[in-house]
Parts: sequence; C-alpha cells; structure tokens
Amino acid sequence: MKLTKEQSKEIKDQQSQQNTTKRVTAPELEKILYEAIPVLDHGFIRVVDYMGDDTSIVQSARVSYGKGTKKVSTDSGLIKYLMRHWHSTPFEMCEIKYHVKLPIFIARQWIRHRTANVNEYSARYSILDKEFYLPDPKNLAAQSKSNRQGRGNVIEGDHAKEVLELLKKDAEKTYEDYEMMLNERYDGTIIDEQKTGLARELARMNLTLNTYTQWYWKTDLLNLMNFLRLRADDHAQYEIRAYADVMLETVKKWVPITYEAFMDYRVGGTEVSAKGKIVIQKLIKGEQVSVEESGLSKREWNELMISFNLKDKLT
Amino acid sequence: MKLTKEQSKEIKDQQSQQNTTKRVTAPELEKILYEAIPVLDHGFIRVVDYMGDDTSIVQSARVSYGKGTKKVSTDSGLIKYLMRHWHSTPFEMCEIKYHVKLPIFIARQWIRHRTANVNEYSARYSILDKEFYLPDPKNLAAQSKSNRQGRGNVIEGDHAKEVLELLKKDAEKTYEDYEMMLNERYDGTIIDEQKTGLARELARMNLTLNTYTQWYWKTDLLNLMNFLRLRADDHAQYEIRAYADVMLETVKKWVPITYEAFMDYRVGGTEVSAKGKIVIQKLIKGEQVSVEESGLSKREWNELMISFNLKDKLT
Amino acid sequence: MKLTKEQSKEIKDQQSQQNTTKRVTAPELEKILYEAIPVLDHGFIRVVDYMGDDTSIVQSARVSYGKGTKKVSTDSGLIKYLMRHWHSTPFEMCEIKYHVKLPIFIARQWIRHRTANVNEYSARYSILDKEFYLPDPKNLAAQSKSNRQGRGNVIEGDHAKEVLELLKKDAEKTYEDYEMMLNERYDGTIIDEQKTGLARELARMNLTLNTYTQWYWKTDLLNLMNFLRLRADDHAQYEIRAYADVMLETVKKWVPITYEAFMDYRVGGTEVSAKGKIVIQKLIKGEQVSVEESGLSKREWNELMISFNLKDKLT
Amino acid sequence: MKLTKEQSKEIKDQQSQQNTTKRVTAPELEKILYEAIPVLDHGFIRVVDYMGDDTSIVQSARVSYGKGTKKVSTDSGLIKYLMRHWHSTPFEMCEIKYHVKLPIFIARQWIRHRTANVNEYSARYSILDKEFYLPDPKNLAAQSKSNRQGRGNVIEGDHAKEVLELLKKDAEKTYEDYEMMLNERYDGTIIDEQKTGLARELARMNLTLNTYTQWYWKTDLLNLMNFLRLRADDHAQYEIRAYADVMLETVKKWVPITYEAFMDYRVGGTEVSAKGKIVIQKLIKGEQVSVEESGLSKREWNELMISFNLKDKLT
Repeated sequence: MKLTKEQSKEIKDQQSQQNTTKRVTAPELEKILYEAIPVLDHGFIRVVDYMGDDTSIVQSARVSYGKGTKKVSTDSGLIKYLMRHWHSTPFEMCEIKYHVKLPIFIARQWIRHRTANVNEYSARYSILDKEFYLPDPKNLAAQSKSNRQGRGNVIEGDHAKEVLELLKKDAEKTYEDYEMMLNERYDGTIIDEQKTGLARELARMNLTLNTYTQWYWKTDLLNLMNFLRLRADDHAQYEIRAYADVMLETVKKWVPITYEAFMDYRVGGTEVSAKGKIVIQKLIKGEQVSVEESGLSKREWNELMISFNLKDKLT
Repeated sequence: MKLTKEQSKEIKDQQSQQNTTKRVTAPELEKILYEAIPVLDHGFIRVVDYMGDDTSIVQSARVSYGKGTKKVSTDSGLIKYLMRHWHSTPFEMCEIKYHVKLPIFIARQWIRHRTANVNEYSARYSILDKEFYLPDPKNLAAQSKSNRQGRGNVIEGDHAKEVLELLKKDAEKTYEDYEMMLNERYDGTIIDEQKTGLARELARMNLTLNTYTQWYWKTDLLNLMNFLRLRADDHAQYEIRAYADVMLETVKKWVPITYEAFMDYRVGGTEVSAKGKIVIQKLIKGEQVSVEESGLSKREWNELMISFNLKDKLT
Repeated sequence: MKLTKEQSKEIKDQQSQQNTTKRVTAPELEKILYEAIPVLDHGFIRVVDYMGDDTSIVQSARVSYGKGTKKVSTDSGLIKYLMRHWHSTPFEMCEIKYHVKLPIFIARQWIRHRTANVNEYSARYSILDKEFYLPDPKNLAAQSKSNRQGRGNVIEGDHAKEVLELLKKDAEKTYEDYEMMLNERYDGTIIDEQKTGLARELARMNLTLNTYTQWYWKTDLLNLMNFLRLRADDHAQYEIRAYADVMLETVKKWVPITYEAFMDYRVGGTEVSAKGKIVIQKLIKGEQVSVEESGLSKREWNELMISFNLKDKLT
Repeated sequence: MKLTKEQSKEIKDQQSQQNTTKRVTAPELEKILYEAIPVLDHGFIRVVDYMGDDTSIVQSARVSYGKGTKKVSTDSGLIKYLMRHWHSTPFEMCEIKYHVKLPIFIARQWIRHRTANVNEYSARYSILDKEFYLPDPKNLAAQSKSNRQGRGNVIEGDHAKEVLELLKKDAEKTYEDYEMMLNERYDGTIIDEQKTGLARELARMNLTLNTYTQWYWKTDLLNLMNFLRLRADDHAQYEIRAYADVMLETVKKWVPITYEAFMDYRVGGTEVSAKGKIVIQKLIKGEQVSVEESGLSKREWNELMISFNLKDKLT
C-alpha cells in the first residue's frame, strides 16, 4: 500500500488533532485513529470516527431493564449475558466509521450488508486510481473439487505465473484503454487536444473487477458483528476475510469486553439442530446412535462432529 | 420536570468528564451535552452522544465525488447543494443519541420511524414511574370540525376543568391499582406481606397511555431530519412537536450549516405538482387560470395558494 | 372474539373471490385466507395476502448459485441446506400480510421488529373500539422470584378475582371517561349537544394499555421467522406467544418445507459457545469436567445442560 | 437480447400456469407476467411475482384512518390525497419482484437502494455468461463540460468507432482470459485436461464492468417509486434510466391510479425552497425581484426558473 503525499498529509493532520470532549472515549482505538492499516496489495482500512464504548452498551441495557438489572453486578457479566441471549438493541448504541480501499469485486460482496451507510468514490465524477489487486502467489487457489463455492490447493509453477501475468496484463491494458477513451490520464494530462473524451460514467465500464475503489462505511456495533461473523469466517472468500480480520482487531481496541463475548459466543460457537441435540445427548449418555437413526444426512452428521472436534466419529 | 437525586448526580458526573480525542467535536453541542431539557410537564430530552459535524458531511461528499467536487469551493456551498438535490448518504455520516422521557401515546407515534436504534425502559422488568402527562389548559383543544386529524379551538371554562380532572383522576386511580396488583409501591414497599404480586408484564396493562416512559434513541442525521420534517410540522400533534422543536435546537448547535440548509429547503420549502406548476406559470405570466381548468381539486388549489401565501386567490 | 356484521360481510366477500393468476399459489393457505382466527379474548389474526411459496425460495437460490446448485437435487434438500447455513436472501423472496387485532401493550412489543410494513388504526382520526384484554384466570401469573422478566405461579382464589375486577373496572371507567371527553359514544351518539368534544388525539391518552388496536402487518418470510423465533419462544410473554403460535400454523400451510427446516434448525435448535463446545466434547469422550474448569458461570453451565436435556448434570 | 432455449422454455411454462386464488389480481400485469422485456443490448426485465393492487393501498389506508376516511369517497381521490401528503405506509402494502439482467456497473448503482431484497447470480459458484454491454453509437456521449457528472454531445465518426472497438476487444480478451484461468469454457468444455482451473471467486476479477449479471429484485411500491423517481429522472445515467423506463410501464399496468398520482406529484412535480417561495410570490404579484435580493445563488435562481419553464427569466 502506498499513500499519495496528499493522503499522508491529511492523515497526519487528522492525527494531530487534540480536542476535548465530554463524550466517552476508547483510548486504545484513539491510538490508531485515522491510521491506514494495509490490507491486500493496495488496500487499506482506516477507523475515521466512532461513538460509544463498552459502557454505552451497559448504560442502554440498564435504561431498558431499569432497577431490574441491578442483580448482574459487573459490566462484563451484563455484556456476556446480553450476547448469550441475543439481546440486540444495546449493541446498536455504538457506531463506527471506516474508510476502506478495496477491489471492486470485494466491494460487491461487502455492499450486500444493507444496514450500513456508505459513500463510495464515484467513477461518474472522477477518474479511478490506476491500482488493481493481484493475488499473492500463495493465495492463488484452484477451484475446489468438493465445494462449488470454495478454493482447493494452491496453483503453482508455470501455471501460476501464467495466471498472474494474464491478470496483470489485462488490468493494465483495460486501464490504458480507459484513459484513451477519456482522452485523459489519471494525473489530468490530456492525451489528444483535438479529441473530446468519452463520458466518465461510460468509460469506467472498461475496467476490470480487480480495480480498487474506496468508500466511507459506517455501521453500528451489532451490524458490524453480523458482518464480521460471516466475513471473518473460514467459508468467506480470502480477500474479504483479510479486511474482516483487520476490523476484528479494531473492535478489540474499541470495545474489549464485547469483543471477548463475541469471540466466545458467536465466532467460536456453533449451532445444533433439534435432531443434532438428540445425537449429542445420546453420545454423552454413552448410548448407540447411527447416522441412519439420527435423521441427519451424512453431510449434516459430519458437520456436527467437526463442530465438536470429534474426528473419530466422521463417516 | 423534576429529576431524582440519582439522575441529577449522574448528569453532573457525565458533564464533568474531560476527555481528549482526535475525533471532530461540536463545541456548541458539547456545552449542553447530557443536560435534561424540559419538554411538556414531566418529559425531557438529553443529547447523550454524537458523532461527526458539518465537516464530516463535506468529507464524505468529497470522497464520493473525488476531484469532481473541487469546483464547489466552500463547505457551506457544498452542503446546500447536497440538500437541494436530495443527496442523502453524506448526511448519514453523522450520528446522534438522545435520552428521552415521553408519554406512551407519543412514544407510539415516534417509534413508527423505523430507521433508528432504541432501548426503551421495560415495564416487564421494572415498575414505571408515577408520572403522567396532563395537558396545559392552553393546549386542551377541541376536535377540529374540518380536519379529521386535527385540533380546533381551545376548550375553556368548566368543561376544560372537567376534562383535566378526569384525566388526572383516572391516571391516579389506574396507577394505584397497578401498585395494588403488583403488591408493591414504586419505591419498593411491599403492600401486603401475605400476598404475591401480579407479574409486571401483566400489571402494566392497567396504566393509561399518558404514563411516561423513557428511551435511548439513536439515529443518523438524514433520518433525524426526516423525523423533524414531519414532526416539527404544523400538522404534527402538538405533544410530539414539543419534542421536535427542542431537537431542532440541538441540530442547530451540532451542525449549524446543515441546519440552515434544512430550514430553507425542507422545513420552509414546498412541493408543487405537475399540474400546480402550470398554474403558477400562468399566474406569473398574468394569464387567466381557474380552478376548473387547472385540473386541481378545490382543496389542492387552496393548498397551493396557501403555500405561496396568496390568500386573495383562495376559493 | 366477536366480529361486527360489517366485518363478517367483508370477510365473506373477500373469501368468495375466485380470480385466476399465473402466479404461484399456496393451496393450503388459500383455504384460510381472510379468515379471522381468534387469539386471546377479543383479538384475531387474518392472513390477507401473500406472495410466493417454497418453490420461490428454491428458484431464487438457483438463480444465485446458477449451475452450481444442480448437485442438491431436491427442493427440500436445498431449503434445508439454506436454513442450516443461514443463507438469508432466498427467504426474503416470499412476503405475507396479516390483519391483526391485539392489545396495545402487545402492539408495543411487536412493533420493535422494524423490518416490516405497518398500517395501524389511528386514534387521532377515529374512536377506538370498546374492547380490552382481560387475562383468562389460568394466565394470571405472579411475578417470578428468580427471573426479573418472567412469570411465576398462577394467582388464585380471592386475590385473582380482585385483580380481574380491578382490570375490568379501570378499563371500563377510563373508556367511559374517554367517551365523556370526546362528548361522543363509540356508536357516534353525541352525549351533550351543548358541548364540543376534546380532540381525539388527546382523549385517547386516557385509555389503558389493554385496549385493543388493530393493524395490517406485512413482512418477508426471513423476518417473519426472526419474529417467530423470538416470540414463539418460552421466554416470550404469553400474550404475544398466543399470536406467534397462530402465525406458526399459517407458515406451515404456506411454506411447509421451510416450516419443517425452521422447526428443526431454529426453533428446536440451540447454540453452544466456544467454551461450551469443549465441555460437550469432554462429556462425550467420558472425560471429567467441572463447572470451575469449564470457564462457564454456574448459570451458563445449567443453561447448557438443560439445552441438551441433561438434568443429572445440573449444579 | 437473446434467450437460451432453456430460458424460453421456462418462461413459456411459467406463463401457461392457470391458478385460482382469492387474492386480488392485477389483470393488465398478469398479461405480461414472466415476459422478458428487452433493455439495452443483452439485458431484460421480467415481472415474476407481485402482491396487491390499487385497492390494497386504499384498504390499508381505511384501516388506519377508520371511519375517518369515509369523507374521501373515491379510491382515486384517496390515493391522490395520500401521495400529495407524503403518506408512506399504505404504499408499502404492495410488493413486486423482478428478474433483471443488467451490466455490472449498472448493478452497482442499483444496489445502493437498500430497502429491497436481492438474489444475484454468484460468480463464486458459477461461470458468468459471455455477454457485455456495448453502447449504441447514439448513446456514446462525451463528458459534459459544465456538469461533472453528466454527458455532453454524442461522439461521432472515427473516434466513436475507435471507442466501440476498444470496448469490444477488451471485453472479449478479458473474457477469453477468464476462461483460460478457469481452464473451462462457458459451455463446460475443459480447455487443458492436464491443468486445474483457478477458483471461480478469483477468476471473475478479470472481467470488465460491462459484463452482464442478473438478479431477482423484490421491493415494495413505496421504495420502488423512490427508486424510479431518481432513476427515471433526466439526471440519471442513461443505462439505468433504460431499466427504470420499462419498470414505470409495469407500474402503470399494476397500479394505474397510483401511477397517475405518482407522475403528477412526484415525477412531474418540483420543490421550492423557502427563499424560492418568496421569489415566486413576488413574480405573481408583479413585484420586482432580482437574483441579488432573492438570496438565491445564480445557479439556484436558474434551476427555479427552469422548473416553472420561465426561460425569459434566466440569468
């Protein structure tokens, strides 16, 4: 990741602010505020604003339950209780805003999370940066044989080189032609004074999906956790997981108690169906139970055993 | 409005905080942060947290439009432009959180605005305060004759007294019986040691709709303006307007440039239909135009004339 | 539940419609369309419109995954897979609309589910029906001792009679005074020709929270399941559960395959935290594990054991 | 637009359905149900399901306002009233579902409308069709000089040919390389039996933004009108307007009364700011008013005059 001079200066200016406030602050998060944390080859994540901290969640919960919450004596105990029982609204009381630079094909996955506010760089108004995502060779995975959606082994050798060259060449060529159509280089140089450039809103269609875009993305803590639960998961595409992993770290700095409860009850937890519960119960009681009797499909049975790390029970 | 000792102390504690932050702050809003601003007879509004200010809107807009925004040189010019052309997402980049005490029948109107986060005091867990809204005599309006939804003249004299007495007596009686069913007074005193109280979630059903409740209510600036546009309007019920008016003042302290644009383009503005545009055009050109020819109903015609303050054209 | 002549006629008219359509239909749901299914003493639920059926979910999923879904050969297998892996968007492709009559204090819980469309009867415009909820004696529960939010044993004998009389008398008295203030009876009779009635939007504040209101409530199948998962649960207040139970039956008639998967994976299922998973694993392997070592609180431990019906392991 | 044999057969099958239902139907919409209406060079719009019609809006409004709505005697009068006064919830009671084929850069604009349900074809699972949008020469507009976001004159002659050739060649080349990386042609042919293909979720990043994708898109009538108001507008990009225009026609067939009110009050209407109102008022009264005195910027003044078609007042 390389920042332009302009960007570096802006970040420095923002970081040198020293305001006083009566609002609650999250000291660990303040330390990295505005900082551009690198993700993938040209992307970044920056926390640019936030509202509330762990105590805001507790405060809202205590307003809701009134004197009824007095029994849960510690903040940590209360937050764990709220997380375990899927209380949702207290976690909506915290808000965070990120500035993200990311490839367009990842932006298209990300935007499917609708309960968030977004301002994206507009290629109708302005020319996109000449930056595209090229995977690190170690992430150049083959299509999985068993899972239609997943990745298999890493592609290596000449084949890998070939793929990377195609990606690079095609991105460069389409960007060059994008400039030709615009009749303008990224830096504002006019290519041919005799010509008029194509409308930006049209020319952009020539770019490949690994071109980088950027946006401000703002959401509340509940919806952020919903996002992270799905996107920091093993089944998520590696490229979005790279962003989610960095964001998880910012959550840890922002609301450390909530982070811990989230890791225990959501990220590290699992779900068991009605039929699955009976299987587990029988296993604990030492009773016999077979896939056939369980009512589970073979696939479900294996998913259940893996979630409890019972590899000897796989079938 | 009377605060309990506990509440007053909490507010004082919150107000004495002095944190440093790299985030933007809104100095005028900081001055009234946490303060309980009285509304109606027992209600209040408190700003308890916020995120962003006018510059956050500008910043997001400039990220969206990139170099394309350079032409609009001032922040104020840009915000006015955004407001005039109904750009919505930059205004979503600011967030505010209120603590509100309000009568239940008003809470029921308020909650219809869905794009907000809410934590309400729960009468399943805790006993509600013994406080109910009794209108000031000057707001004791009769049902409007012409408008099914509106208020007519103020009711006066004995009739007014009667109404106020009914409201008071009924609220007190139902609250007393609420305590009887709970077998517990608000302050925690048990009424009859031999009895068990009714479940709180049931007993609450005996309360009248003017009983006060309270909640934390958090929303972004765009949705706040949507709320205020409807609720600070003449057609809104007086009791919710009382809250909206106070909130408008907090918006002014928070994002003064946006506030001004909002007042000009939304609150003070009007809409004209396709047919209405032709009427206005003819009037300006000094051409004849009658209700019949206009295609407007009499009612629409009059609404149009009133919105341009052309009382001599009413029919 | 008693319907007015007018309502009965409207329902009959609606049910006698026989339209032809190229849309998919849900034959079992058609049979009960428009029917007023009684809930509580004066409430009802009516399905008044719907869109899609089980095949709509399958169709959307197949559009998403394209040729990639061919491997899951049956509709039922695909729906179960989607439910198990928390795929959400295909379930949003079905929509349903209910007409519900319910007490106001239940309406206040219900409305907290924001992703739905609502049109409620407006007491600003019209006079509310003279109908209030009075619990059946078998549902007259005491406040739970152990759970701040729950119900304990049923209240019986004279105490029960007392409570029911208070509820009845207060509701009747406040309603009568509501009419006095309006200077108009529910049936439109003017009480005193010499007086003007108080504005409806004000008079309504005198009603108690067990007064019935009604609304049209429309949502998609995903959000309906989110609602039912919480509101058909043991921890939900009995009065809203009564509605949720009836709605579950309508889901069964509408989308039977989805219903079955929902009952297995959501309603009948459970969640296990990261720490809980280790406990279960040790129990299955026959290893020793104590509350202390587990890292679970005593409360969490017991919740875990109960969810797998392992009562001998309670502590 | 060319449909595959499979698609044509599916549409024919769907259109031959003849189900009976007690639900309301929209006969004019039924006539074109499932039909693929061509948009741009390879795109289409299909209405695949709907719920409700004009009477559903009226019915919900009458539930809300109760006896209070009796005064507005006709359905058409009531719908116009609701539209004029920005009543929103009754219009949410109707729902529609489209199947859309569209270029990715348009999909990226479209998806910003968040209050809708979407299932998009997934290029993680399946290979995208070999179809890309190439503008018709008459839509090959130059960048506007005056408006950063808009289009200027059409580009003609050799320059136009050049642009179209670049677009075509780049799309074809990147698609060919996409197949190479996948080691598989769109029709499933393996390219080189010795190689393993790159994961689909990676290979897709090589495609250009004019590649076609498809989705199911479902929304309520209120949010559809919000979408159409913005996207069927002159300021919208031509390519999305092409879709919006077709959708407008489907609204006309579905809810003809609402359509008419929408065209009059929203699409054909305009807004006037507080300052603008004073200008209009003075013009009607024949008083003098200049740009300077008005408090409007020159740009605002001109926008106002254009909206009332007063070209002689431009400055």
